[in-house]
Amino acid sequence: MNKNDEFYMREALVEAKKALEKDEVPIGAIVVVDDKIVGRGHNEREESHLISRHAEIIAIEDAEKRLNTKILDNASIYVTIEPCPMCAYAIMEAHIKKLVYGAIDEKRGAISTLDIYNKKLGSKVLYYGKIIEGECSNLLKEFFKNKR
Amino acid sequence: MNKNDEFYMREALVEAKKALEKDEVPIGAIVVVDDKIVGRGHNEREESHLISRHAEIIAIEDAEKRLNTKILDNASIYVTIEPCPMCAYAIMEAHIKKLVYGAIDEKRGAISTLDIYNKKLGSKVLYYGKIIEGECSNLLKEFFKNKR
Repeated sequence: MNKNDEFYMREALVEAKKALEKDEVPIGAIVVVDDKIVGRGHNEREESHLISRHAEIIAIEDAEKRLNTKILDNASIYVTIEPCPMCAYAIMEAHIKKLVYGAIDEKRGAISTLDIYNKKLGSKVLYYGKIIEGECSNLLKEFFKNKR
Repeated sequence: MNKNDEFYMREALVEAKKALEKDEVPIGAIVVVDDKIVGRGHNEREESHLISRHAEIIAIEDAEKRLNTKILDNASIYVTIEPCPMCAYAIMEAHIKKLVYGAIDEKRGAISTLDIYNKKLGSKVLYYGKIIEGECSNLLKEFFKNKR
């Protein structure tokens, strides 16, 4: 764990809480280059009616627009939950070098289910999870409990 | 193979050729519901500087916007090449029931490399490839040959 991991994961949690306020599944993501936040996103699937509007895709697009490049090879991404295969592959395609995530997603997470970063599909992604795992996970658990 | 598969794949090829005209990797996609085209897209990664702008994502978003729903459970998608993991999972998440593709992508295709639709990650997707494979594949080969 990097000394800044907790700081940036708390920023991703700020994004997740923005999703929660809109009654979206509370997931947030932050893209960081040279110790600066260059991309932010939170899940907006319900609001947009678009399956692609996951927090990670939005944060990556935000960074790509700001930096005017589709390649983010000096970037790290912080996500409050393990990415799904769509987002995990977008991270790889953007050449993001490091992924840090909070909660584990054993059912849909692309690392847990597909071991996606060890299949030689593209650029190398360094990844680790369970950063502020409890808070990231509880936010989701509370959301789904209230939905029932 | 459905009797309409060739017809819709030719429409996906029309999209791929639009990408080619812009010097993008020539890949196209079409979303069909009840024998009507409700979404179209071609690769726009270079033009947009956005890693998410693959033909399939654009075609799915086009259909979702037109139909005002993120769930396309009566839809089929036609793509000129086997989808990458990002697009393959977006197809699943949109509950698209059928995927038809042209060329095979042994290196990055999510079916060839990950067998993604047999991993119980979400809704069931019926899929088959090699529809007008030669034309779909040659378009890509010529593009990369001219790039060298």
